[in-house]
Amino acid sequence: MFALTHPLVLASQSPRRRQILEMLGFDFTVQAADTDETPPLGMEAERVPEFLALKKALEISRLRPEALVLGSDTLVELDGEILGKPVDAADAVAMLSRLHGRTHRVFTGVALARGGERLGSSTGRSEVTFASWNLSDLEAYVQGGEPMDKAGAYAVQGRGAFLVEKIDGCFFNVMGLPIQKTLHLLAPSRAT
Amino acid sequence: MFALTHPLVLASQSPRRRQILEMLGFDFTVQAADTDETPPLGMEAERVPEFLALKKALEISRLRPEALVLGSDTLVELDGEILGKPVDAADAVAMLSRLHGRTHRVFTGVALARGGERLGSSTGRSEVTFASWNLSDLEAYVQGGEPMDKAGAYAVQGRGAFLVEKIDGCFFNVMGLPIQKTLHLLAPSRAT
Repeated sequence: MFALTHPLVLASQSPRRRQILEMLGFDFTVQAADTDETPPLGMEAERVPEFLALKKALEISRLRPEALVLGSDTLVELDGEILGKPVDAADAVAMLSRLHGRTHRVFTGVALARGGERLGSSTGRSEVTFASWNLSDLEAYVQGGEPMDKAGAYAVQGRGAFLVEKIDGCFFNVMGLPIQKTLHLLAPSRAT
Repeated sequence: MFALTHPLVLASQSPRRRQILEMLGFDFTVQAADTDETPPLGMEAERVPEFLALKKALEISRLRPEALVLGSDTLVELDGEILGKPVDAADAVAMLSRLHGRTHRVFTGVALARGGERLGSSTGRSEVTFASWNLSDLEAYVQGGEPMDKAGAYAVQGRGAFLVEKIDGCFFNVMGLPIQKTLHLLAPSRAT
């Protein structure tokens, strides 16, 4: 449906990003970058995902100069603090307990590169308000394993959906890829 | 994960509703009602889905008195008018052209019944703002076939995601089942 002028490469291992691109009808391959994801010292949280998305896109673009390379990175922020992936089940329970009944922010950066150069980048912002649930539900959720490889310890498109009271902003941004921003980045590269 | 006191029956053929209940981890079976979906004369659009959801739940509940029966119905409204499922491709293009660049409302009613009696019901409300896209994208989308069995002629969790600029309210409500309202209805029937 969305034909492009060059082959599209997704520089991310995330099955959720793959799912969104597939859902939109893009043909693409996956080649994940081995990028050091440490944010530069002093960079504010909101700017980090776009910075890392671009870093990933440029890294793969140098290996695949003939392709359009899409990089992406998602960050969960609460009280000015970045919530990464939980290190173990206890950490996941602690993280979800902090998010319980409150609103946190999710930023997803997207970046497009070709021939080792940046074509464009932007950041999707969403505010996610969690419902109130009891500790045994939360522990059962963590026991199910879903939180372990997710920033903020939940998946909005999985069982974790029960945690969410409402989302202001793009749902797919929380899932890992802001759709309109991604389409906007790819628009100049569409085959006519 | 969410164990219930009685077997759960979903009174809907919608694969999207099934997907959401599965995602949340419920065990359930599907038995669709053959309900006449004509709304009562003069009922305002916003009240129709809950009315029909309850009608479906009660109908199946009489056949399956031992079960908890969940009924649901989704309605798309623009300018006070109900947008149903398109009758053909031209109708789908016309419907999507009306929605283009504007905000419409999606109401999903949910109702729970047992032993032929209503246990509870409610309505989820979402406002969906469509992006602006060109006619050829829209025609390609309709040609792909996705709009044909959907109220309002799009699927928010399918290729139709490219249409959406933003959603105020529950994403899953637009997909066909408001998650928090459904969990709230089922809460008194949870096994402890």
